[in-house]
Amino acid sequence: MKFEISAQLKYYTYSNGCIILNIKALKDSKQKVIKEFFTTSTDIKIKDYKELSSRNRLTNLKIVAGQDLEINYNALVDNNFELMDIKKVADLNLSKISPELLKYMHPSRYCQSDKLYRLANNKFGKKTDNFEKVTALTQWIYKNVEYLSGSTNSQTSAYDTVTEQAGVCRDFAHLGIALCRALTIPARYFTGYAYQLFPQDFHACFEAYINGKWLLFDATRLVPLNGLVKIAHGRDAADAAVANIFGEVNFMFSSVNCQLAEDEFIPFIPDNLSRKAISYL
Amino acid sequence: MKFEISAQLKYYTYSNGCIILNIKALKDSKQKVIKEFFTTSTDIKIKDYKELSSRNRLTNLKIVAGQDLEINYNALVDNNFELMDIKKVADLNLSKISPELLKYMHPSRYCQSDKLYRLANNKFGKKTDNFEKVTALTQWIYKNVEYLSGSTNSQTSAYDTVTEQAGVCRDFAHLGIALCRALTIPARYFTGYAYQLFPQDFHACFEAYINGKWLLFDATRLVPLNGLVKIAHGRDAADAAVANIFGEVNFMFSSVNCQLAEDEFIPFIPDNLSRKAISYL
Amino acid sequence: MKFEISAQLKYYTYSNGCIILNIKALKDSKQKVIKEFFTTSTDIKIKDYKELSSRNRLTNLKIVAGQDLEINYNALVDNNFELMDIKKVADLNLSKISPELLKYMHPSRYCQSDKLYRLANNKFGKKTDNFEKVTALTQWIYKNVEYLSGSTNSQTSAYDTVTEQAGVCRDFAHLGIALCRALTIPARYFTGYAYQLFPQDFHACFEAYINGKWLLFDATRLVPLNGLVKIAHGRDAADAAVANIFGEVNFMFSSVNCQLAEDEFIPFIPDNLSRKAISYL
Amino acid sequence: MKFEISAQLKYYTYSNGCIILNIKALKDSKQKVIKEFFTTSTDIKIKDYKELSSRNRLTNLKIVAGQDLEINYNALVDNNFELMDIKKVADLNLSKISPELLKYMHPSRYCQSDKLYRLANNKFGKKTDNFEKVTALTQWIYKNVEYLSGSTNSQTSAYDTVTEQAGVCRDFAHLGIALCRALTIPARYFTGYAYQLFPQDFHACFEAYINGKWLLFDATRLVPLNGLVKIAHGRDAADAAVANIFGEVNFMFSSVNCQLAEDEFIPFIPDNLSRKAISYL
Repeated sequence: MKFEISAQLKYYTYSNGCIILNIKALKDSKQKVIKEFFTTSTDIKIKDYKELSSRNRLTNLKIVAGQDLEINYNALVDNNFELMDIKKVADLNLSKISPELLKYMHPSRYCQSDKLYRLANNKFGKKTDNFEKVTALTQWIYKNVEYLSGSTNSQTSAYDTVTEQAGVCRDFAHLGIALCRALTIPARYFTGYAYQLFPQDFHACFEAYINGKWLLFDATRLVPLNGLVKIAHGRDAADAAVANIFGEVNFMFSSVNCQLAEDEFIPFIPDNLSRKAISYL
Repeated sequence: MKFEISAQLKYYTYSNGCIILNIKALKDSKQKVIKEFFTTSTDIKIKDYKELSSRNRLTNLKIVAGQDLEINYNALVDNNFELMDIKKVADLNLSKISPELLKYMHPSRYCQSDKLYRLANNKFGKKTDNFEKVTALTQWIYKNVEYLSGSTNSQTSAYDTVTEQAGVCRDFAHLGIALCRALTIPARYFTGYAYQLFPQDFHACFEAYINGKWLLFDATRLVPLNGLVKIAHGRDAADAAVANIFGEVNFMFSSVNCQLAEDEFIPFIPDNLSRKAISYL
Repeated sequence: MKFEISAQLKYYTYSNGCIILNIKALKDSKQKVIKEFFTTSTDIKIKDYKELSSRNRLTNLKIVAGQDLEINYNALVDNNFELMDIKKVADLNLSKISPELLKYMHPSRYCQSDKLYRLANNKFGKKTDNFEKVTALTQWIYKNVEYLSGSTNSQTSAYDTVTEQAGVCRDFAHLGIALCRALTIPARYFTGYAYQLFPQDFHACFEAYINGKWLLFDATRLVPLNGLVKIAHGRDAADAAVANIFGEVNFMFSSVNCQLAEDEFIPFIPDNLSRKAISYL
Repeated sequence: MKFEISAQLKYYTYSNGCIILNIKALKDSKQKVIKEFFTTSTDIKIKDYKELSSRNRLTNLKIVAGQDLEINYNALVDNNFELMDIKKVADLNLSKISPELLKYMHPSRYCQSDKLYRLANNKFGKKTDNFEKVTALTQWIYKNVEYLSGSTNSQTSAYDTVTEQAGVCRDFAHLGIALCRALTIPARYFTGYAYQLFPQDFHACFEAYINGKWLLFDATRLVPLNGLVKIAHGRDAADAAVANIFGEVNFMFSSVNCQLAEDEFIPFIPDNLSRKAISYL
């Protein structure tokens, strides 16, 4: 499914330093970046990096004090995800826990799964398989946590949200991840462009590792899961932030967009009874 | 410098599952594992993994309910570390922040550097270079945090320790890492066998990335820095735990040992005035 | 109902200072202290205080370094509680919120009701009256929190317990109080001697202010509510601790006992359907 | 010293309920309320309460849905405080710890003194007497915590501020109180009108109990200590909030004022060397 995505970011710089952006569409065997443009308003030094294991594509921009900096990214992307019927398989095959999986089972800054062990197992531990467990916890978050702009900040974590029950997409994702890990299910943070998200912005949800695949879950239910263009994954928002800023910088403005570049779109928002899921990687 | 290391671990298993151990000496261009033996008391399925970026060596042991499990590891290792004079270089070269470094600049489960920004910069921000900053914060931890067995638990984090001022090696390391990251200095958790540690046990300290090298710091001052055999590094104790257990298992007993396998040993415990440091990677 | 209660406490003192005990049975119009004895092994300066608003009876013992101190308290008490049928009354009469009630509606050290507002109202807010709300939340704690000796410590608060779901009587009480306050129901911590508690110890539960009475609730369901001899109430365990110690003191031993001093005892443990409750003050 | 104080508060009410205000000047043997006026824009039911032990004066206003409510309070007050020379007295006389003092030694919602014990004693424990300790900790807060409007919220506590090192007057007061209590010095929250505070608003600072007197300390150093008109004291901001609101209410506007009603004013801001202090009670 093809989408035209764009992001425009404006900063004013008060010091030298660098901005590391994580806004480019991921490239892999499934998601094809057909064309893309990345430009900056001023002539600055730019270095591109690809992270070894995640293949996240970072852009390191050297900044100089006292400048207006405008960044424009746009791309045409085919998010060739996989739509699957999920068979009943009770558990993760434990001998398959490689270091790459293990790191998504550990607690992280915003996903303190070690503190949610009893709660997660009391609530969801008796479901028959991991797909049912993650479906149930995603539904539980949707029902119990209020989507409320401005209710949380950059320090808010899953341990807060499970009790305070309000937050934004980032908080919904962190809580989903923390509950999965407390159930011994690897889970990671997913960021992307999102078709039919109103108002348009970057979006966050999460992936859980079930039956050998990273399946996508979104407890906000704000967007169809087949309308996402993946940017990055990581342990939590610390790993997959849109921007890491080193130096004194004022964020002035951003505009994010995701448009369908085909004729037809049949939205996929999973219900709780179907055993259908989408995988992006 | 050559050391004979050994670890003996005993568990009783109440369920099927797996134990993932992280106790083998790291192998790299500097640290040579001359010989090593890994045995288990019962004939169980074992799978070895090496983590892609860290080269940590994990051992996945499949466990079966109702068994006494004894694990023995011993090795002869040459920890061919580098002892360096550290030149004054003010800051991290920001265009060099690759994803591999960036992940050690983010907050993590036990190192909430995002909450320590003001404190770290008020206390240590005015030092002239990053080596002085890390030396000063290591000394500050040594002076202000009491080493007190049993005072903390597996949920204790740097945010607790900075105020509660008591802990064990793990807590000293987490606080050092969090303060470094709050000062925009990449830092990571280091585990190893430690010569002249009393009582003998696994040890934890931290590495900070300065002038292009990962330098070793230990705020406990319990052991000479040149008497360590490195096992692993990671973001914090979540990444580099000695054992990850999936299943119901009783930990019965452990014995850890690190002996000098040469004639002479001149302990290196850095003072605050010298600009000498040790790097293990 | 008459009970013979006793407490024996042994300390060793390393410094001068004082111990303030809160172990004497409360005296009021309902609870009669028929006779009581308070003795100490060494001849020390003792001062009795009664708190103005709660009528808690504190004993300030001046301690001297280097002494074995044994304290013995025993009493015969008639806990002449009130057993009531609770009528449906929707809400607290708001014009009746005096400062004496208001302080039991505020968050306190171990009962951070301000953080539980959404959770409490989502779960229990739709019940028809305050008695049903408190009955439901008491039942919810009983079902979801595991009674587990040693799982918590003196810093554990309701905010921890609501998520970590394990604790002892103190933690059950704190969570009950915090949920009540989040529902705009005054609630306070209750300590006492408890008949049929095994093993015998001091017990903690909570009182909620409903229809003009302080009603007793106990989410542990460990003891009959009519077998308690009240010692004290307060905002939380900070106010009603058995002992406040100023100085260096080693706690050596305690023995607590509560025996029936009548022939017959019909245990009262409320079920969820009856609208019966007990009030001690 | 005479001051004219006033407060104007505007609310819009969406539901029935009540607002409990704590804005009237305290009346006691020292502080004389010469005249005062309290009016509301609409004819509502008002009930005045005085708290038993603190003598705080609360006003309970019954509110009705769908109304603009404007409250005006003004008064002429003589804050006949005591200015004292503080003699060296090492410690609190422990046999004098009555329940009234004891409650200001316990941890409270925003002043978790139990977590600051080591830090407080490491930093300030060696000072010769309690006055020096409190003077030193007040100075330490002033130097290390940045006064930054909007940096904190209603959940922020001393445990946060000691590390995050930013806040407003409420946070400065909470940290001062928590450090005092960790040093076994009773301390309580103080609210008042403040002459020469810019911009004009309610102010918060704290009182510590030294040599038998409640002495005033203000780590913000924003106002002269002799220019305050005391409203209330309590354990922390939970006890002494300007308004407790039960019901759905929109806060629209407030205006607070404190003017000198005499000719001359010599500001008293204590320095660290003098042993002079002010007591309001």
